[in-house]
Amino acid sequence: YTGYPSAASVDPMWSYFTAIAGQDGEVDAEELQRCLTQSGIHGTYKPFSLETCRIMIAMLDRDMTGKMGFNEFKELWAALNGWKQNFMMYDQDRSGTVEPLELGQAITSMGYRLSAQAINGIIKRYCKDGKTYFDDYVACCVKLRAVTDAFRRRDSLQQGYVNFAYDDFIQCTMSI
Amino acid sequence: YTGYPSAASVDPMWSYFTAIAGQDGEVDAEELQRCLTQSGIHGTYKPFSLETCRIMIAMLDRDMTGKMGFNEFKELWAALNGWKQNFMMYDQDRSGTVEPLELGQAITSMGYRLSAQAINGIIKRYCKDGKTYFDDYVACCVKLRAVTDAFRRRDSLQQGYVNFAYDDFIQCTMSI
Ligand SMILES: [Ca+2]
Ligand SMILES: [Ca+2]
Ligand SMILES: [Ca+2]
Repeated sequence: YTGYPSAASVDPMWSYFTAIAGQDGEVDAEELQRCLTQSGIHGTYKPFSLETCRIMIAMLDRDMTGKMGFNEFKELWAALNGWKQNFMMYDQDRSGTVEPLELGQAITSMGYRLSAQAINGIIKRYCKDGKTYFDDYVACCVKLRAVTDAFRRRDSLQQGYVNFAYDDFIQCTMSI
Repeated sequence: YTGYPSAASVDPMWSYFTAIAGQDGEVDAEELQRCLTQSGIHGTYKPFSLETCRIMIAMLDRDMTGKMGFNEFKELWAALNGWKQNFMMYDQDRSGTVEPLELGQAITSMGYRLSAQAINGIIKRYCKDGKTYFDDYVACCVKLRAVTDAFRRRDSLQQGYVNFAYDDFIQCTMSI
Protein backbone atom coordinates (compact mmCIF):
# COMPACT_ATOMS: atom_id res chain seq x y z
CA TYR A 1 0.00 0.00 0.00
CA THR A 2 1.64 3.24 -1.16
CA GLY A 3 -0.88 5.83 -0.10
CA TYR A 4 -1.24 7.04 -3.65
CA PRO A 5 -4.78 7.01 -5.03
CA SER A 6 -5.27 4.24 -7.55
CA ALA A 7 -5.94 5.05 -11.19
CA ALA A 8 -9.55 4.00 -10.68
CA SER A 9 -10.22 6.52 -7.94
CA VAL A 10 -8.60 9.48 -9.72
CA ASP A 11 -10.09 8.84 -13.11
CA PRO A 12 -13.71 7.80 -13.41
CA MET A 13 -13.23 6.96 -17.10
CA TRP A 14 -10.62 4.34 -16.26
CA SER A 15 -12.97 1.72 -14.83
CA TYR A 16 -15.35 1.52 -17.74
CA PHE A 17 -12.57 1.94 -20.31
CA THR A 18 -10.77 -1.15 -18.97
CA ALA A 19 -14.03 -3.07 -18.67
CA ILE A 20 -14.69 -2.53 -22.36
CA ALA A 21 -11.09 -2.69 -23.59
CA GLY A 22 -10.54 -6.16 -22.17
CA GLN A 23 -7.22 -7.95 -21.90
CA ASP A 24 -5.32 -6.02 -24.53
CA GLY A 25 -6.07 -2.69 -22.80
CA GLU A 26 -7.05 -1.10 -26.12
CA VAL A 27 -10.34 -0.47 -27.85
CA ASP A 28 -11.21 -1.05 -31.50
CA ALA A 29 -13.85 1.00 -33.29
CA GLU A 30 -16.81 -0.98 -31.96
CA GLU A 31 -15.48 -0.94 -28.40
CA LEU A 32 -14.79 2.79 -28.71
CA GLN A 33 -18.37 3.34 -29.84
CA ARG A 34 -19.60 1.54 -26.71
CA CYS A 35 -17.19 3.50 -24.48
CA LEU A 36 -18.31 6.84 -25.86
CA THR A 37 -22.00 5.93 -25.79
CA GLN A 38 -21.77 4.78 -22.15
CA SER A 39 -19.84 7.91 -21.19
CA GLY A 40 -22.74 10.02 -22.42
CA ILE A 41 -20.41 12.60 -23.94
CA HIS A 42 -22.85 13.06 -26.84
CA GLY A 43 -25.31 14.58 -24.33
CA THR A 44 -28.63 15.21 -26.02
CA TYR A 45 -27.16 14.38 -29.44
CA LYS A 46 -27.20 10.97 -31.11
CA PRO A 47 -24.35 8.65 -30.07
CA PHE A 48 -21.42 8.50 -32.48
CA SER A 49 -21.72 6.28 -35.53
CA LEU A 50 -19.31 3.40 -36.06
CA GLU A 51 -17.84 5.18 -39.09
CA THR A 52 -16.99 8.25 -37.00
CA CYS A 53 -15.43 6.00 -34.33
CA ARG A 54 -13.29 4.38 -37.02
CA ILE A 55 -12.12 7.82 -38.11
CA MET A 56 -11.30 8.70 -34.49
CA ILE A 57 -9.13 5.62 -34.16
CA ALA A 58 -7.43 6.23 -37.49
CA MET A 59 -6.52 9.72 -36.26
CA LEU A 60 -5.05 8.70 -32.91
CA ASP A 61 -3.58 5.33 -33.76
CA ARG A 62 0.06 6.41 -33.76
CA ASP A 63 1.49 2.89 -33.38
CA MET A 64 -0.75 1.56 -36.20
CA THR A 65 -2.35 -1.25 -34.18
CA GLY A 66 -5.82 -0.19 -35.37
CA LYS A 67 -6.82 0.29 -31.72
CA MET A 68 -6.71 3.00 -29.06
CA GLY A 69 -5.14 2.82 -25.57
CA PHE A 70 -6.29 4.72 -22.48
CA ASN A 71 -3.99 7.72 -22.93
CA GLU A 72 -5.12 8.19 -26.51
CA PHE A 73 -8.70 7.79 -25.32
CA LYS A 74 -8.24 10.63 -22.81
CA GLU A 75 -6.72 12.82 -25.50
CA LEU A 76 -9.72 12.12 -27.72
CA TRP A 77 -12.03 12.83 -24.80
CA ALA A 78 -10.53 16.30 -24.28
CA ALA A 79 -10.78 17.10 -27.99
CA LEU A 80 -14.39 15.89 -28.13
CA ASN A 81 -15.39 18.14 -25.26
CA GLY A 82 -13.91 21.14 -27.04
CA TRP A 83 -15.61 20.30 -30.33
CA LYS A 84 -18.92 19.75 -28.58
CA GLN A 85 -18.73 23.13 -26.83
CA ASN A 86 -18.00 24.74 -30.17
CA PHE A 87 -20.90 22.95 -31.88
CA MET A 88 -23.35 23.95 -29.16
CA MET A 89 -22.41 27.59 -29.63
CA TYR A 90 -23.81 27.40 -33.15
CA ASP A 91 -26.65 24.94 -32.46
CA GLN A 92 -28.56 27.42 -30.31
CA ASP A 93 -31.91 25.67 -30.71
CA ARG A 94 -30.38 22.25 -29.83
CA SER A 95 -31.76 20.68 -33.00
CA GLY A 96 -28.60 18.60 -33.32
CA THR A 97 -27.65 20.33 -36.55
CA VAL A 98 -25.94 23.51 -37.70
CA GLU A 99 -26.33 25.40 -40.96
CA PRO A 100 -23.65 25.16 -43.72
CA LEU A 101 -22.43 28.69 -43.07
CA GLU A 102 -22.20 27.97 -39.35
CA LEU A 103 -20.03 24.92 -40.07
CA GLY A 104 -17.67 27.22 -41.94
CA GLN A 105 -17.67 29.67 -39.03
CA ALA A 106 -17.06 26.89 -36.54
CA ILE A 107 -14.00 25.73 -38.50
CA THR A 108 -12.66 29.26 -38.77
CA SER A 109 -13.23 29.83 -35.05
CA MET A 110 -10.97 26.83 -34.33
CA GLY A 111 -8.11 28.76 -35.92
CA TYR A 112 -7.97 27.15 -39.36
CA ARG A 113 -7.26 29.72 -42.05
CA LEU A 114 -8.72 28.23 -45.22
CA SER A 115 -9.83 29.63 -48.57
CA ALA A 116 -13.55 29.96 -49.34
CA GLN A 117 -13.08 27.11 -51.84
CA ALA A 118 -11.65 24.79 -49.19
CA ILE A 119 -14.44 25.69 -46.75
CA ASN A 120 -17.04 25.06 -49.47
CA GLY A 121 -15.55 21.65 -50.23
CA ILE A 122 -15.74 20.75 -46.55
CA ILE A 123 -19.33 21.99 -46.28
CA LYS A 124 -20.36 19.93 -49.30
CA ARG A 125 -18.78 16.82 -47.87
CA TYR A 126 -20.27 17.13 -44.39
CA CYS A 127 -23.79 18.40 -45.09
CA LYS A 128 -26.88 16.22 -45.51
CA ASP A 129 -30.04 17.91 -46.78
CA GLY A 130 -28.41 21.28 -46.19
CA LYS A 131 -27.53 20.59 -42.56
CA THR A 132 -24.55 19.28 -40.65
CA TYR A 133 -25.29 16.77 -37.89
CA PHE A 134 -23.21 16.56 -34.73
CA ASP A 135 -21.77 13.17 -35.69
CA ASP A 136 -20.61 14.40 -39.11
CA TYR A 137 -19.29 17.61 -37.60
CA VAL A 138 -17.11 15.60 -35.22
CA ALA A 139 -15.92 13.35 -38.07
CA CYS A 140 -15.00 16.55 -39.92
CA CYS A 141 -13.09 17.96 -36.91
CA VAL A 142 -11.22 14.69 -36.39
CA LYS A 143 -10.21 14.52 -40.04
CA LEU A 144 -9.28 18.19 -40.35
CA ARG A 145 -7.04 17.86 -37.32
CA ALA A 146 -5.47 14.62 -38.58
CA VAL A 147 -4.66 15.91 -42.07
CA THR A 148 -3.38 19.21 -40.66
CA ASP A 149 -1.14 17.31 -38.23
CA ALA A 150 0.12 15.07 -41.05
CA PHE A 151 0.91 18.14 -43.14
CA ARG A 152 2.55 20.04 -40.29
CA ARG A 153 4.82 17.13 -39.36
CA ARG A 154 6.25 17.23 -42.89
CA ASP A 155 6.40 21.03 -43.13
CA SER A 156 9.43 21.27 -40.85
CA LEU A 157 10.22 24.87 -41.86
CA GLN A 158 6.57 25.89 -41.35
CA GLN A 159 6.35 27.44 -44.80
CA GLY A 160 2.93 26.09 -45.72
CA TYR A 161 4.29 23.82 -48.47
CA VAL A 162 5.15 20.12 -48.46
CA ASN A 163 6.72 18.04 -51.20
CA PHE A 164 4.88 14.71 -51.15
CA ALA A 165 6.05 11.47 -52.73
CA TYR A 166 3.10 9.48 -54.13
CA ASP A 167 3.44 6.62 -51.66
CA ASP A 168 3.55 8.99 -48.68
CA PHE A 169 0.55 10.90 -50.03
CA ILE A 170 -1.39 7.63 -50.25
CA GLN A 171 -0.43 6.76 -46.68
CA CYS A 172 -1.65 10.16 -45.47
CA THR A 173 -4.92 10.10 -47.32
CA MET A 174 -6.00 6.46 -47.27
CA SER A 175 -5.64 5.86 -43.53
CA ILE A 176 -8.22 8.51 -42.68
CA TYR B 1 -38.46 12.21 -85.83
CA THR B 2 -34.80 11.65 -86.67
CA GLY B 3 -34.67 7.89 -86.97
CA TYR B 4 -32.04 7.70 -84.26
CA PRO B 5 -32.89 5.52 -81.29
CA SER B 6 -33.74 7.57 -78.22
CA ALA B 7 -31.48 7.47 -75.19
CA ALA B 8 -34.07 5.35 -73.39
CA SER B 9 -34.01 2.55 -75.94
CA VAL B 10 -30.22 2.35 -76.21
CA ASP B 11 -29.48 2.58 -72.55
CA PRO B 12 -31.58 0.63 -70.06
CA MET B 13 -30.01 2.55 -67.17
CA TRP B 14 -31.31 5.85 -68.51
CA SER B 15 -34.99 5.33 -67.64
CA TYR B 16 -34.56 4.49 -63.99
CA PHE B 17 -31.76 7.02 -63.56
CA THR B 18 -34.01 9.88 -64.72
CA ALA B 19 -36.93 8.55 -62.67
CA ILE B 20 -34.82 8.78 -59.53
CA ALA B 21 -32.80 11.87 -60.44
CA GLY B 22 -35.90 14.02 -60.92
CA GLN B 23 -35.99 17.47 -62.43
CA ASP B 24 -32.36 18.44 -61.91
CA GLY B 25 -31.15 15.35 -63.78
CA GLU B 26 -28.61 14.60 -61.07
CA VAL B 27 -28.56 12.28 -58.07
CA ASP B 28 -27.41 13.04 -54.55
CA ALA B 29 -26.00 10.34 -52.26
CA GLU B 30 -29.40 8.99 -51.18
CA GLU B 31 -30.71 8.92 -54.74
CA LEU B 32 -27.50 7.24 -55.91
CA GLN B 33 -27.95 4.60 -53.23
CA ARG B 34 -31.48 3.90 -54.57
CA CYS B 35 -30.24 3.85 -58.18
CA LEU B 36 -27.48 1.37 -57.41
CA THR B 37 -29.69 -0.81 -55.23
CA GLN B 38 -32.39 -0.98 -57.92
CA SER B 39 -29.81 -1.73 -60.59
CA GLY B 40 -28.78 -4.81 -58.64
CA ILE B 41 -25.10 -4.24 -59.41
CA HIS B 42 -24.20 -5.51 -55.93
CA GLY B 43 -25.40 -8.96 -57.03
CA THR B 44 -25.41 -11.33 -54.07
CA TYR B 45 -23.59 -8.77 -51.92
CA LYS B 46 -25.22 -6.24 -49.62
CA PRO B 47 -26.34 -3.00 -51.32
CA PHE B 48 -23.95 -0.08 -50.92
CA SER B 49 -24.08 1.95 -47.72
CA LEU B 50 -24.95 5.64 -47.80
CA GLU B 51 -21.41 6.48 -46.68
CA THR B 52 -19.91 4.64 -49.65
CA CYS B 53 -22.38 6.40 -52.00
CA ARG B 54 -21.28 9.74 -50.55
CA ILE B 55 -17.67 8.81 -51.28
CA MET B 56 -18.63 7.84 -54.85
CA ILE B 57 -20.21 11.24 -55.43
CA ALA B 58 -17.28 13.07 -53.85
CA MET B 59 -14.99 11.26 -56.30
CA LEU B 60 -16.93 11.98 -59.47
CA ASP B 61 -18.40 15.38 -58.66
CA ARG B 62 -16.07 17.42 -60.87
CA ASP B 63 -18.28 20.52 -60.97
CA MET B 64 -18.68 20.48 -57.16
CA THR B 65 -22.50 20.44 -57.12
CA GLY B 66 -22.52 17.57 -54.62
CA LYS B 67 -24.51 15.51 -57.14
CA MET B 68 -23.90 13.17 -60.06
CA GLY B 69 -25.24 13.44 -63.62
CA PHE B 70 -25.95 10.56 -66.00
CA ASN B 71 -22.55 10.57 -67.71
CA GLU B 72 -20.76 10.44 -64.38
CA PHE B 73 -23.15 7.70 -63.30
CA LYS B 74 -22.20 5.61 -66.33
CA GLU B 75 -18.52 6.15 -65.63
CA LEU B 76 -19.08 5.00 -62.04
CA TRP B 77 -21.05 2.02 -63.32
CA ALA B 78 -18.15 0.86 -65.49
CA ALA B 79 -15.68 1.26 -62.63
CA LEU B 80 -17.97 -0.64 -60.24
CA ASN B 81 -18.24 -3.58 -62.61
CA GLY B 82 -14.47 -3.80 -62.83
CA TRP B 83 -14.02 -3.62 -59.07
CA LYS B 84 -16.72 -6.21 -58.52
CA GLN B 85 -15.07 -8.65 -60.97
CA ASN B 86 -11.80 -8.13 -59.16
CA PHE B 87 -13.39 -8.68 -55.72
CA MET B 88 -15.11 -11.88 -56.84
CA MET B 89 -11.77 -13.28 -58.00
CA TYR B 90 -10.61 -13.19 -54.38
CA ASP B 91 -13.97 -13.97 -52.74
CA GLN B 92 -14.05 -17.52 -54.09
CA ASP B 93 -16.53 -18.80 -51.52
CA ARG B 94 -18.85 -15.79 -52.06
CA SER B 95 -18.87 -14.98 -48.35
CA GLY B 96 -18.95 -11.28 -49.21
CA THR B 97 -15.55 -10.72 -47.62
CA VAL B 98 -11.89 -11.08 -48.53
CA GLU B 99 -8.90 -11.59 -46.27
CA PRO B 100 -6.52 -8.69 -45.44
CA LEU B 101 -3.75 -10.15 -47.61
CA GLU B 102 -6.17 -10.58 -50.49
CA LEU B 103 -7.19 -6.93 -50.24
CA GLY B 104 -3.52 -6.06 -50.67
CA GLN B 105 -3.25 -8.39 -53.66
CA ALA B 106 -6.43 -6.94 -55.20
CA ILE B 107 -4.98 -3.42 -54.96
CA THR B 108 -1.68 -4.51 -56.46
CA SER B 109 -3.48 -6.35 -59.27
CA MET B 110 -5.17 -3.05 -60.22
CA GLY B 111 -1.74 -1.65 -61.06
CA TYR B 112 -1.01 0.39 -57.94
CA ARG B 113 2.61 0.12 -56.92
CA LEU B 114 2.63 0.84 -53.20
CA SER B 115 5.02 0.12 -50.33
CA ALA B 116 4.17 -2.58 -47.80
CA GLN B 117 3.59 0.21 -45.28
CA ALA B 118 1.02 1.93 -47.49
CA ILE B 119 -0.74 -1.37 -48.18
CA ASN B 120 -0.82 -2.13 -44.45
CA GLY B 121 -2.33 1.27 -43.70
CA ILE B 122 -5.06 0.63 -46.25
CA ILE B 123 -5.72 -2.86 -44.88
CA LYS B 124 -6.04 -1.50 -41.35
CA ARG B 125 -8.47 1.16 -42.47
CA TYR B 126 -10.70 -1.12 -44.52
CA CYS B 127 -10.84 -4.28 -42.41
CA LYS B 128 -13.49 -5.10 -39.81
CA ASP B 129 -12.85 -8.10 -37.56
CA GLY B 130 -10.01 -9.13 -39.84
CA LYS B 131 -12.11 -9.10 -43.01
CA THR B 132 -12.88 -6.64 -45.78
CA TYR B 133 -16.52 -6.44 -46.84
CA PHE B 134 -17.52 -5.68 -50.43
CA ASP B 135 -18.93 -2.26 -49.48
CA ASP B 136 -15.71 -1.20 -47.74
CA TYR B 137 -13.60 -2.63 -50.56
CA VAL B 138 -15.48 -0.45 -53.07
CA ALA B 139 -15.15 2.61 -50.82
CA CYS B 140 -11.40 1.84 -50.73
CA CYS B 141 -11.20 1.53 -54.55
CA VAL B 142 -13.13 4.78 -55.06
CA LYS B 143 -10.92 6.66 -52.64
CA LEU B 144 -7.65 5.20 -53.93
CA ARG B 145 -8.60 6.20 -57.46
CA ALA B 146 -9.69 9.68 -56.39
CA VAL B 147 -6.53 10.48 -54.42
CA THR B 148 -4.33 9.01 -57.15
CA ASP B 149 -6.14 11.15 -59.77
CA ALA B 150 -5.77 14.24 -57.57
CA PHE B 151 -2.05 13.54 -57.19
CA ARG B 152 -1.50 12.79 -60.90
CA ARG B 153 -3.25 15.99 -62.03
CA ARG B 154 -0.70 17.97 -60.02
CA ASP B 155 2.31 15.83 -60.98
CA SER B 156 2.50 17.29 -64.48
CA LEU B 157 5.99 15.95 -65.13
CA GLN B 158 5.01 12.48 -63.87
CA GLN B 159 7.90 12.35 -61.45
CA GLY B 160 6.04 10.92 -58.49
CA TYR B 161 6.40 14.09 -56.40
CA VAL B 162 4.00 16.97 -55.83
CA ASN B 163 4.56 20.19 -53.88
CA PHE B 164 1.31 20.84 -52.01
CA ALA B 165 0.25 24.14 -50.47
CA TYR B 166 -1.64 23.58 -47.20
CA ASP B 167 -4.97 24.88 -48.54
CA ASP B 168 -4.78 22.67 -51.64
CA PHE B 169 -3.85 19.66 -49.48
CA ILE B 170 -6.93 20.28 -47.32
CA GLN B 171 -9.12 20.52 -50.43
CA CYS B 172 -7.75 17.20 -51.71
CA THR B 173 -8.13 15.34 -48.46
CA MET B 174 -11.29 16.78 -46.90
CA SER B 175 -13.60 16.37 -49.88
CA ILE B 176 -13.17 12.57 -49.91
CA1 LIG C 1 -9.61 -4.48 -26.92
CA1 LIG D 1 -29.71 23.91 -34.85
CA1 LIG E 1 -31.72 14.98 -58.05
